[in-house]
Amino acid sequence: MQLTETHRPTLDRALEAIRSREYWSPHPEHPKAYGETGAADGLAAYRALLGNRFELDQPGTDGWTGPEVSPYGPELGIEYPHPDLDVLLPAMRAGMADWRDAGAERRALVCLEILSRISARTHEFAHAVMHTSGQAFMMAFQAGGPHAQDRGLEAVAYAYQEQTRTPRSADWSKPQGKRDPLELRKSFTAAPRGIALLIGCNTFPTWNGYPGLFASLATGNAVLVKPHPRAVLPLAMTVRIAREVLVETGFDANLVALCAERPGEGIAKTLALRPEIKIIDYTGSTAFGDWLEQHARQAQVYTEKAGVNTVVIDSTDDYRGMLSNLAFSLSLYSGQMCTTPQNLLIPRDGIATDTGPKSYDEVVADLAASVSALLGDDGRANALLGALVNPDVKSRLEAASGLGEVALPSREVTHPEFPDAVVRTPVIVKLDGAKPDDEASFMSECFGPVSFAVAVDSAGDALELLRRTVRDKGAMTVGAYTTSAEIERAVEEVCLEESAQLSLNLTGGVYVNQTAAFSDFHGSGGNPAANAALCDAAFVSNRFRVVEVRRQA
Amino acid sequence: MQLTETHRPTLDRALEAIRSREYWSPHPEHPKAYGETGAADGLAAYRALLGNRFELDQPGTDGWTGPEVSPYGPELGIEYPHPDLDVLLPAMRAGMADWRDAGAERRALVCLEILSRISARTHEFAHAVMHTSGQAFMMAFQAGGPHAQDRGLEAVAYAYQEQTRTPRSADWSKPQGKRDPLELRKSFTAAPRGIALLIGCNTFPTWNGYPGLFASLATGNAVLVKPHPRAVLPLAMTVRIAREVLVETGFDANLVALCAERPGEGIAKTLALRPEIKIIDYTGSTAFGDWLEQHARQAQVYTEKAGVNTVVIDSTDDYRGMLSNLAFSLSLYSGQMCTTPQNLLIPRDGIATDTGPKSYDEVVADLAASVSALLGDDGRANALLGALVNPDVKSRLEAASGLGEVALPSREVTHPEFPDAVVRTPVIVKLDGAKPDDEASFMSECFGPVSFAVAVDSAGDALELLRRTVRDKGAMTVGAYTTSAEIERAVEEVCLEESAQLSLNLTGGVYVNQTAAFSDFHGSGGNPAANAALCDAAFVSNRFRVVEVRRQA
Repeated sequence: MQLTETHRPTLDRALEAIRSREYWSPHPEHPKAYGETGAADGLAAYRALLGNRFELDQPGTDGWTGPEVSPYGPELGIEYPHPDLDVLLPAMRAGMADWRDAGAERRALVCLEILSRISARTHEFAHAVMHTSGQAFMMAFQAGGPHAQDRGLEAVAYAYQEQTRTPRSADWSKPQGKRDPLELRKSFTAAPRGIALLIGCNTFPTWNGYPGLFASLATGNAVLVKPHPRAVLPLAMTVRIAREVLVETGFDANLVALCAERPGEGIAKTLALRPEIKIIDYTGSTAFGDWLEQHARQAQVYTEKAGVNTVVIDSTDDYRGMLSNLAFSLSLYSGQMCTTPQNLLIPRDGIATDTGPKSYDEVVADLAASVSALLGDDGRANALLGALVNPDVKSRLEAASGLGEVALPSREVTHPEFPDAVVRTPVIVKLDGAKPDDEASFMSECFGPVSFAVAVDSAGDALELLRRTVRDKGAMTVGAYTTSAEIERAVEEVCLEESAQLSLNLTGGVYVNQTAAFSDFHGSGGNPAANAALCDAAFVSNRFRVVEVRRQA
Repeated sequence: MQLTETHRPTLDRALEAIRSREYWSPHPEHPKAYGETGAADGLAAYRALLGNRFELDQPGTDGWTGPEVSPYGPELGIEYPHPDLDVLLPAMRAGMADWRDAGAERRALVCLEILSRISARTHEFAHAVMHTSGQAFMMAFQAGGPHAQDRGLEAVAYAYQEQTRTPRSADWSKPQGKRDPLELRKSFTAAPRGIALLIGCNTFPTWNGYPGLFASLATGNAVLVKPHPRAVLPLAMTVRIAREVLVETGFDANLVALCAERPGEGIAKTLALRPEIKIIDYTGSTAFGDWLEQHARQAQVYTEKAGVNTVVIDSTDDYRGMLSNLAFSLSLYSGQMCTTPQNLLIPRDGIATDTGPKSYDEVVADLAASVSALLGDDGRANALLGALVNPDVKSRLEAASGLGEVALPSREVTHPEFPDAVVRTPVIVKLDGAKPDDEASFMSECFGPVSFAVAVDSAGDALELLRRTVRDKGAMTVGAYTTSAEIERAVEEVCLEESAQLSLNLTGGVYVNQTAAFSDFHGSGGNPAANAALCDAAFVSNRFRVVEVRRQA
């Protein structure tokens, strides 16, 4: 396979993109870009998987487990191999020396081949992501397809760059005055840490999974993929493609393997403490993320946990744009993104806008109206909201109405194709930043379509609350609307000091909850919501070590 | 101050050196390079410090503490300010926003000015290092002076490079087919984590301290320096110079501060858990290093702990060179380096050499003779050995003789200038790799002038023991002597798999226990001896976070 000719230009372009941070992607976002029969072929391929065993030919398979049930209702009926770890883990180590010796460039090119085969099957992946995460089709297509592939490629580019900063060899000659110089011949090898464990999440199996998977693989590690039990398929498909490419390029298939678990098995906890596991990537609850950081001491642990995302609303010169931008952010995927705003901090005396001053009540009512208008049509609502991913989200949504005055009640939406899907519009609840009871509500993550319109005394009060929220609870995103240069500067300062990613005055087609690979960092790694950012040098540079061998020249 | 003109070329040269890994240093190793009166001026400056308070004008000084006693005998009689942390820590944060806003280049240049002023006072530092660590003068001069400065500069170069991989700003424009593109203006700021804590060590206060200190400072953090209570002076001098330069360049002096502790206070433990402390660099015992990694969860923790360094002796084509090289490595600074070989693995059936086969007993006896010859002259012995740094080392040395057959007894050496100095030549003890009692001895670190000549069954046995030692106990260095390509490949493979830095067949003037900044990595960060290497991207890239602010364009 001519990997260099095919993929080296893409790698170079990715390296350029992460340096310039300009827009770039090799993965088309439009479903029609995948060929005339792409959509039909993808759907057929997805359907062919349903109700069957997902064979992977892994060593040590001691049973079969599954099957997932789509948040849209249908049972997927797929069974996945369950591993005997004492057989699988040693088998995964067998091919590591060859993979290491192949070097950083070859590994990057093999990763790019894997990604390009995933890209070619984006339609099939879209259905798999939709029916495991509950995302609407178009979001599953884009976020689960090209955007996830972008994040994988970004990780490969960073990994390649970090591993090639030290040359493979160097001659070292130290002058000794009149005597002969001291001379050494040195070699430097990027050596992997061991087996990496990817613990996938329910909501974004590929988007949140690919960075860690490809960062670890590109740095020479083997990768064991432990998907969320409700979202196995997209990662199982990924593992199958990776294994195929590895074999075709002359490597051991077992460098990438799947670890599906039996219901209630909790295998992640067992795996996390195995001495073979040297790297862990995790997206999920703060409780388990903290547990991993504390107990998986033999491993490098990268976690994305819960946070409380805030939008400070001080003033705007585009009130209408602000409302529609916020309405979209609150609605997309029923607020089930780690980046969805939760707390909207609004001065109780109201805000200045281009259409005159607006009271707190007016802002909240106008936002509620904006959401209602956006989601008034059921077809559009279904296309934006997707389904609630699990019953816990539904329970939280229902409980939220009891926390305060409901400014916008949630509405049930019927899905014409999937009548069992639980589709709900977001609820907006009014809370008071000065009331301790209310603070207890808005200061913890309420994952799902729930937002709090929090009345604050002033912009200064909002900034103080923002700082406390980021510091104590973490945040994946912060948004702010202000026409005051002084307040803009102050909110920037809070974000710089508390390490939070800030979006300012977004009123158009970019949303606070979306980031673009190669340009935007996802999370900062500097507040409690996550200990790593996607993707930077720190995300890859500790997944390998440089081992030096020096000889007298 | 024209920082750019003065230091930018040095920074560029350092950046080139870490890429090429060729020999380079801007800091002269020869004492005569520091001017005709350099030596006398340095000694006078050092003497002027003795018996006085070391004023630093830090906020929150609540008392004075000290004084150190030289391992050579004399009391230094210097008292250092003791801080009230509740005053000092907030004061250290005050200047951080300005330091952050100065940007990566300006911070690097200020760090280079600090290093260049330290360099100009290398003679003074040499005496301070000698009389706190017990190193002989020439070693204190070189390792405590230019080599430490090199490691500091190396850290600055890495820090600068990492922070400048993302541009300060970028314009992002995403095509939207026939519609207007989405356009954002983005800014990226390297934002510090907070206050960094440097916990210094007794043996190499500057060499082991500068990488963490300068890596943290160059990435925008404030740095609190907590020296080892027996080695305060070299770091106190460093802090004073840093504070002077910070003020002269327009920054807050309190970005660098000293935290001297009262006898038995154990302030490191208190500091390590303070929420303000976000980074910790530590060199010392495994017990406290492990404690820090486990408990200082709010901080990035970089540790260099204990290891068991091994040399595999299989065969050589330069028997004489091997013996003299090893003799020097065992003797330098009385084996009180974290890189000194401890276990010499020698086949019990002997080895092949260029002067014929040598039995295990012959190899050990010849090595003992080589050490004796090297240290036969008291003047030379004193110049190489230095003094034992503390009574624990002496106790371990004395106890070692009881562990097995003594092949080379330790000898007391009298120091003509400092009769109270405890100077000892190394002991070599014969042990058997097949005996569990012996294994208990050689499988734990015996810090000081103690080496074990361990009889093994074969080269294969040696490699198995090497692997187990590195994996379970860690190693800062591995050495090997072999003329067999197969064994050479096998020892390389062990080091690659267990992440240990390997020196092969050193028989000349480079020693397994010495590394050169800009070219050699010190430790790997991949085995239990240390969780970081000096110096690589991973050592600096998590000391700051990139905070992005994006605005609609």
